[in-house]
Amino acid sequence: MRAILVTLMVGSILMASAAAEARQLNLMPMPAAVQMQAGQLVIDPAFSVGISGHSDAQLQRTVERFLDDLRRETGMPPLDMKVMNAAQATLVVHCEHESNAVQELGEDESYSLEINTAGAKLEATTTLGIMRGLQTFLQLVQTASNGFAVPAITIQDKPRFQWRGLMIDVGRHFIPLDVLKRNLDGMAAVKLNVFHWHLSENQGFRVESKKFPKLTEMGSDGLYYTQEEVRDLIAYAHDRGIRVVPEFDMPGHSTAWFIGYPELASGPGPYQIERKWGVFDPAMDPAQERTYKFLDAFIGEMAKLFPDQYFHIGGDEVNGKQWDANPQIQAFMRAHGLKTNRDLQAYFNTRVQKIVSKHGKTMVGWDEILRPDLPKDIVVQSWRGQDSLAAAARQGYRGILSYGYYLDLMWPASRHYAVDPLNDGAANLTAEEKQRILGGEACMWSEYVSPENIDSRIWPRTAAIAERLWSPQDVTDVNSMYQRLEYVSRWLDWLGLTHNSSYEPMLRRIADSNDISALQTFTDVVEPVKDYTREEIATVEATSLSPLNRVIDAVRPESDTARHFADLVDALMGGHADSKAKQEVRTLLILWRDNQANLQALETQSFLLREIVPLSQDLSAVAATGLQALDYLDRGERAPDAWATQQFALLAEAQKPKAQLLLMIVPSVQKLVEASSGQKPLPPQK
Amino acid sequence: MRAILVTLMVGSILMASAAAEARQLNLMPMPAAVQMQAGQLVIDPAFSVGISGHSDAQLQRTVERFLDDLRRETGMPPLDMKVMNAAQATLVVHCEHESNAVQELGEDESYSLEINTAGAKLEATTTLGIMRGLQTFLQLVQTASNGFAVPAITIQDKPRFQWRGLMIDVGRHFIPLDVLKRNLDGMAAVKLNVFHWHLSENQGFRVESKKFPKLTEMGSDGLYYTQEEVRDLIAYAHDRGIRVVPEFDMPGHSTAWFIGYPELASGPGPYQIERKWGVFDPAMDPAQERTYKFLDAFIGEMAKLFPDQYFHIGGDEVNGKQWDANPQIQAFMRAHGLKTNRDLQAYFNTRVQKIVSKHGKTMVGWDEILRPDLPKDIVVQSWRGQDSLAAAARQGYRGILSYGYYLDLMWPASRHYAVDPLNDGAANLTAEEKQRILGGEACMWSEYVSPENIDSRIWPRTAAIAERLWSPQDVTDVNSMYQRLEYVSRWLDWLGLTHNSSYEPMLRRIADSNDISALQTFTDVVEPVKDYTREEIATVEATSLSPLNRVIDAVRPESDTARHFADLVDALMGGHADSKAKQEVRTLLILWRDNQANLQALETQSFLLREIVPLSQDLSAVAATGLQALDYLDRGERAPDAWATQQFALLAEAQKPKAQLLLMIVPSVQKLVEASSGQKPLPPQK
Repeated sequence: MRAILVTLMVGSILMASAAAEARQLNLMPMPAAVQMQAGQLVIDPAFSVGISGHSDAQLQRTVERFLDDLRRETGMPPLDMKVMNAAQATLVVHCEHESNAVQELGEDESYSLEINTAGAKLEATTTLGIMRGLQTFLQLVQTASNGFAVPAITIQDKPRFQWRGLMIDVGRHFIPLDVLKRNLDGMAAVKLNVFHWHLSENQGFRVESKKFPKLTEMGSDGLYYTQEEVRDLIAYAHDRGIRVVPEFDMPGHSTAWFIGYPELASGPGPYQIERKWGVFDPAMDPAQERTYKFLDAFIGEMAKLFPDQYFHIGGDEVNGKQWDANPQIQAFMRAHGLKTNRDLQAYFNTRVQKIVSKHGKTMVGWDEILRPDLPKDIVVQSWRGQDSLAAAARQGYRGILSYGYYLDLMWPASRHYAVDPLNDGAANLTAEEKQRILGGEACMWSEYVSPENIDSRIWPRTAAIAERLWSPQDVTDVNSMYQRLEYVSRWLDWLGLTHNSSYEPMLRRIADSNDISALQTFTDVVEPVKDYTREEIATVEATSLSPLNRVIDAVRPESDTARHFADLVDALMGGHADSKAKQEVRTLLILWRDNQANLQALETQSFLLREIVPLSQDLSAVAATGLQALDYLDRGERAPDAWATQQFALLAEAQKPKAQLLLMIVPSVQKLVEASSGQKPLPPQK
Repeated sequence: MRAILVTLMVGSILMASAAAEARQLNLMPMPAAVQMQAGQLVIDPAFSVGISGHSDAQLQRTVERFLDDLRRETGMPPLDMKVMNAAQATLVVHCEHESNAVQELGEDESYSLEINTAGAKLEATTTLGIMRGLQTFLQLVQTASNGFAVPAITIQDKPRFQWRGLMIDVGRHFIPLDVLKRNLDGMAAVKLNVFHWHLSENQGFRVESKKFPKLTEMGSDGLYYTQEEVRDLIAYAHDRGIRVVPEFDMPGHSTAWFIGYPELASGPGPYQIERKWGVFDPAMDPAQERTYKFLDAFIGEMAKLFPDQYFHIGGDEVNGKQWDANPQIQAFMRAHGLKTNRDLQAYFNTRVQKIVSKHGKTMVGWDEILRPDLPKDIVVQSWRGQDSLAAAARQGYRGILSYGYYLDLMWPASRHYAVDPLNDGAANLTAEEKQRILGGEACMWSEYVSPENIDSRIWPRTAAIAERLWSPQDVTDVNSMYQRLEYVSRWLDWLGLTHNSSYEPMLRRIADSNDISALQTFTDVVEPVKDYTREEIATVEATSLSPLNRVIDAVRPESDTARHFADLVDALMGGHADSKAKQEVRTLLILWRDNQANLQALETQSFLLREIVPLSQDLSAVAATGLQALDYLDRGERAPDAWATQQFALLAEAQKPKAQLLLMIVPSVQKLVEASSGQKPLPPQK
């Protein structure tokens, strides 16, 4: 599932009235039903929470954590805001019974929240719904003119999909436990409920096995989680209403297993931990019984360690070369009537499925595993798209969508937001078939992330995906999404996520200076190249040994500044820009035009800056072009054709990636040039 | 030791040549001897460290932590930069023997570091010196034009004082363990070696006692450290070459003890945890044997928990009211010939000292404990100043200075930096007496700090104090200090300290907006009122229940922007401002003049902003005055007397604290008005 994705579904439907009413609220994901009331409930140091109805330790921890978050949000000391008896409490939390000891797929997450000027009541069937409702409450807190407050409001809420996940690949780059935990906090804040832990890769095996200790001793560079740490993370996730689904990718993506256990492989060893990125030859040997014996013991051990019902076996991207080259495997295929490597992998999957099932688990795998001989209870995770998902659903298989949610492709939030598990090929499914589409997962493949920048690749974009998976299907207003996303992004700061705070320190390292204003002016309008272009145009092959300290590693996947500039230019093009907007277009262009002169001083002192010199020069040149176009427009004079031709050539050049970066203001300046040269004349301006 | 400090010693001596040479290096504290060489040593992924000579687990952890820091600083992955055998390593670390299992006062911390273009060697007697030298190495890393590098250099270094501490008061506001840990990381980075843990106060008792569980059960609001956590913190500190000295303040500052154990007190109970700030009546009963029996058992328990040789018993600020009111205590005093409460406290201290000594520890206390009948091995911590310290030294007592290092007084770094334990009253001591001045401690009293803003009160100013205590006495150049402080401050970001990163989130909360540019323009040029003025001018009494979310809690103790502006204006006054500096003065004044208009929009929406409206208006008015003065100066025209009189009145008004904040640009604008009105004419400008 690492291949290039091609098509893109873009949908934009008007928001439903409930959502539209709540637009000024900074809620994300948008609840199913929101009704604003008059007035507000003050949140002051006397604020308290009471538990009525069922109570247990998990619920109490949930309420304590809510108060910690609320104190952090408002700056109250730990002595303020207490848990007290429900009769006197400001916020009464009522749930009917405890949630399951092991969280289950489809467990009730619904809640209702009623806030009036005297108090608030949050009701849910189980603690899970309370968790979701308390996150909504936190997002409602505003700094009003007379103190902190939440608006009077009635909310009825429940998720659209039951499987709303984030996958993190800790195989290619190891991600420490504390980084995962803060991301679990982020997931809980936007009501995601599955952490899919991609635990083994060619580049590393990341979980301690007591039965097969050489997996980590030889296959992890010492970078792995002990079983105690795994249990700790699972408990942490469970307390936040998040299931933990482990993935051990097989039979491919498995080089790291073979260093300690070469007898598992289909080709002769010895093996080494892979340092490069890509699809590699090593694969497990499906023709040997000892492979299944190993997997039976290993999966048995891991099935005990990971309590979740679902167990992901990967199953993607086997290139088959080791199978082709192994005479015993070829003989085995002939003996069993397996014509192709796909058949052989299907045989392997069937065997593995029986093992997974024997240990009480339900198997999950990527698209490739799907073959009619597998039982109907398996789940297919699709990186191919809704058509593939729909085909599986028609055959009776359940599926989750990851196509369109690959965070490493550096797409803007709006593009992820437009992908809906039930659109496209899935739109025509019967109601029963649609039930089999369980939801989706954002995927953070980790070739280019480190503990330092992983948060900035996951957040805030994942919040938009979370909304897609939780909120009603008709919540699709992109402007509203971006407005609320900005608030959610800043709310995530309070939870310790570093997607905002790591930016400037990384720029300071690059600049070797505390004065990064010129560098930031530049980095604010560039983005990393998209899809797999980073690998395709690399001049030096990146490996797991490459420092991730370049400009491309620091810049955000999506430039808010460029998007804002595009909005201004579009307003200008549409004839509805006010004088302030017009002035801002000019101010920004002047800033960018003059920036290269400021950046030059830094460029000589740091090797990390050298590669951006050409693009920084482009920024100045493009901005100068934009200013000239503006001048023509302001004078009401048509720009000469020769000038326009020259500028289009310049813009075409500036459009090309440099240092694997894209200059995001080019399309907007292109529009200015087109307008000034009469190719797309401006409408009358107000 | 919470009274108002009056005098201030300001010294400024030219830097010695070694220090001057190294000025462009961002080292803090400045080493004892630095010699630059030609060339540099490249730091790339192949960089490695080897241990020659003695090795042990602590040294290995030290080297691993160094590599972690170096990777974080440079953005290298964990697979890069390894420990390998010394023959091939880039940096060879050599120490002769292990450091003590319990770090001792005066233990050798010296090291020598030699870096040439081929490699580096760090030598020290023990692991302690290696720790110090590795911090120096990290501070030497620069982003050069051809990669990361450290300059070729020879450094011989050792501390001037053996006791270089930071005290954190966790009694008034509880400070969680992780916040303490990141501050220990900061301490290690600037070579501090004593964490003085102020663990009990009227407002809270913070350490679990197995013998007296009601101390925390009833006296902590549930906010305390378990013994396991204490051991964890001590181990963490020990690994960083930091001693942990516990303080249990007695007989005063002890209300929190009495809630569970009222029989210890001199007055009738019942007691409650104190919520207010100040000096209160409750004090232990020195006339009852049961008090000493309790303390014997308690100190015995704590003496085992805290391995350090030194044990701080506080001993400050007993107001004596409970003693005066207790007939039994009065009778006891008469029976023992104790004439004053001071005598009674001395009796108490003598008894406590015997208990401390019986449990193998050396007693430390604040100034007040000093009485000639105490044995000479006790240590006096002076909040009164060098005279008091010198008097103790003359009597044969050892002492540490905290006068001048109170971080809660919101002084600029330069003012702390100017305080030297061996100046003033201590300057005339004999060499032998000077030996008794062990060093000093920065003190973070916690009435107005929370986990959110404590780092910004401690850092970066404590780095300047750390330099005072480590570096040669003649390292006193304030400009150099500020230049280096800025770099150290940013280096501390990498260690997870939040003094820089917490600023903007706090402003966003105050503004209830993500657009905080106008607010920050304002907060960048204000400072909290100094000394104890915050309490003195408070309109609402602050308590431990007060939220610390106001503008005063977010703004920095020292405005870098105002200091920079003052430098520019001074350059202008001195006739050595270039045209760029002149332009910058004008640009800043325009920004400030126009800021109130921008801030106004926010002011209506957030109650936390309302209190700053008058000061924000002052900022605009003062800046307008500055611009008018500049205009007169530019035109070479003398400003009319009437205008000047009016402006001086305006400036005098703007100088007054508002919302407990000070507008820090006023003195500089005052200078501009004086110059423009001919009161202090400008010299010829260049």
